[in-house]
Amino acid sequence: MERPVGESEPGNSATSRPVVVAVSMGDPLGIGPEIVAKVLTDPEIRNLARFQIYGSESAMRRGAEAAGVGRFWRGEGEAGGGEGTPVLVECGDGVEPPAGPPRPTAEGGKVSAAAVMRGIEACTRGGAMGGTGGVGEVGGADALVTAPISKESWSLAGVGFPGHTEMLAAALGVERAAMLFVGPSLRVILVTIHVPLREVPRLVTAEKVFDAIELGARACRELGVRRKGGARVAVAGLNPHAGEGGLFGDEDERVIRPAVERARAAGIDASGPWPGDAVFLAAAKGNYDLVVAMYHDQGLIPVKLLDREEAVNVTVGLPIIRTSPAHGTAFDIAGRGVASAASMKAAVRVAVGMAEQKLSV
Amino acid sequence: MERPVGESEPGNSATSRPVVVAVSMGDPLGIGPEIVAKVLTDPEIRNLARFQIYGSESAMRRGAEAAGVGRFWRGEGEAGGGEGTPVLVECGDGVEPPAGPPRPTAEGGKVSAAAVMRGIEACTRGGAMGGTGGVGEVGGADALVTAPISKESWSLAGVGFPGHTEMLAAALGVERAAMLFVGPSLRVILVTIHVPLREVPRLVTAEKVFDAIELGARACRELGVRRKGGARVAVAGLNPHAGEGGLFGDEDERVIRPAVERARAAGIDASGPWPGDAVFLAAAKGNYDLVVAMYHDQGLIPVKLLDREEAVNVTVGLPIIRTSPAHGTAFDIAGRGVASAASMKAAVRVAVGMAEQKLSV
Repeated sequence: MERPVGESEPGNSATSRPVVVAVSMGDPLGIGPEIVAKVLTDPEIRNLARFQIYGSESAMRRGAEAAGVGRFWRGEGEAGGGEGTPVLVECGDGVEPPAGPPRPTAEGGKVSAAAVMRGIEACTRGGAMGGTGGVGEVGGADALVTAPISKESWSLAGVGFPGHTEMLAAALGVERAAMLFVGPSLRVILVTIHVPLREVPRLVTAEKVFDAIELGARACRELGVRRKGGARVAVAGLNPHAGEGGLFGDEDERVIRPAVERARAAGIDASGPWPGDAVFLAAAKGNYDLVVAMYHDQGLIPVKLLDREEAVNVTVGLPIIRTSPAHGTAFDIAGRGVASAASMKAAVRVAVGMAEQKLSV
Repeated sequence: MERPVGESEPGNSATSRPVVVAVSMGDPLGIGPEIVAKVLTDPEIRNLARFQIYGSESAMRRGAEAAGVGRFWRGEGEAGGGEGTPVLVECGDGVEPPAGPPRPTAEGGKVSAAAVMRGIEACTRGGAMGGTGGVGEVGGADALVTAPISKESWSLAGVGFPGHTEMLAAALGVERAAMLFVGPSLRVILVTIHVPLREVPRLVTAEKVFDAIELGARACRELGVRRKGGARVAVAGLNPHAGEGGLFGDEDERVIRPAVERARAAGIDASGPWPGDAVFLAAAKGNYDLVVAMYHDQGLIPVKLLDREEAVNVTVGLPIIRTSPAHGTAFDIAGRGVASAASMKAAVRVAVGMAEQKLSV
């Protein structure tokens, strides 16, 4: 099997300065602080970039303790630590989540939303604005990696967005954004995401399918796919056997095929609609660089089966680079030190690879 | 990973007489005759049971040639060959498909439909009626393994059924039948099959979900799952995250959960609805014996990704045992000797295992 991320293996590009990565800590009572601590004390990860942590000192202290590591960062105005020491940007503003079991809280929502917003701001300034070199200097960043927030915490805090994606789209003035998953075996982009299955056929329009193909093909370049003629994009069908010539629904021929043809006319190496139960295996074997899936389970079942904890969520269509692990706050295991940092680690690697790609262009 | 089929590894049971398997040859111009020849000349397979081939001498001769083997069967009235020599039951009735490239033909439809029908009849008589021992004696069979037919050939021939499943249901007077897939990693049963995705939410009723749970749990016993309390049945949700508490559709709570509860009340170890993108991995890890999938791609994507050519289709809910490979006629590669017999071989193994299970009860 091909290793999709391999072509842009982070840390191998010759960039003129180190990449700067903004990491938002996620919900203070979730597994976010713990996995951030696990990832940013890994020497291999630390060698890849300079890191800024957007979160709160108190939550990061508890996260480090759960991870079994000491304080590995310095505060914004604080002296000491080497050049590569992560800088923690305090976003808590005095707000402290209540003690007690891990759960959604208004305070957690407030801190984690502020952390994401400040991470976005850092990325809009850009990493060249100065990274984490000097005392008190947190300029910009090249990429944002977000640990999991709690949608319920954000709701309790009265944050005006249901989740990361909406906040990113609003803050960056973007209308076309999509969710792409990348792992060792597959790259998959979704046309529809968190909607009831019964609404999917109506929401899968030729426009949206074309957008996903185009955004996905462009993202493949950013993810390091260097193929003459561009990424090979396979588009999944909506119906069984991609409709079997109209026998099992007409959307594949009426909606999806025209979108594929429009993409081909635009110079994208797209094909399909392919039967959903065949296309992911073909992609995992290396025949395609990207699969366009029509709905959540169609795309996520293969991603979770083949790439498991190494799957990374990339928001494409934004003017900034943003990745995140493909899991949630996991309140049920938070604070116990047992959370796997694999997906968060992979999210950092993908973000660094994309930033190096961008800097080397 | 657990090996679901393992518990009923065929050939290991102590049955009082050899199992008799009826094999229908499939479309004469498809890969059916070739893979039947490959499977029934495999000494390991031949040791498992006595075999009857329902098809035509001429097509089987071409199939054997494509497979690179000689004539390994004897005709019904023909002397010679050992006790274990497969008997070919001529169903062609003088009908001969035209020469030329592999494609759907009326003649092919006629022969292959007659072959399936006679195979069904043999199974309704049962293997104890006398197998393939004596000259001219083809009594009954314990299981039917069907090589792929062409739905278009059946249509050209005016066969009154669109495919195997409908013929089986009508011939056997069955109303509740379902498609179950079994492979080394997974067992999956489908609630809906070959329908447009937009019709799925309407067709997924509590009744149909319950039927699939019950038929599937019973089939697990027939497939050799010997667990106190019965097979562990995981039911997939319809919507993303199984509806996320109603946020992404209400069918999971309104339709699927009541069906799961009804099954539990009936003594079945059922659980769910589980998120589609998590439940198949959990089953592949051995946490469940069976997954109930709501629609074609939800169930077939994991089966094709994990079990590939070893996936076997079992029709459950019939009074007879019937399995088939999980692929079609493959007219594009027929006659060239390159068709893989892996799924057909697995289909024979599963059928023999189920028959031994039944005979040893």
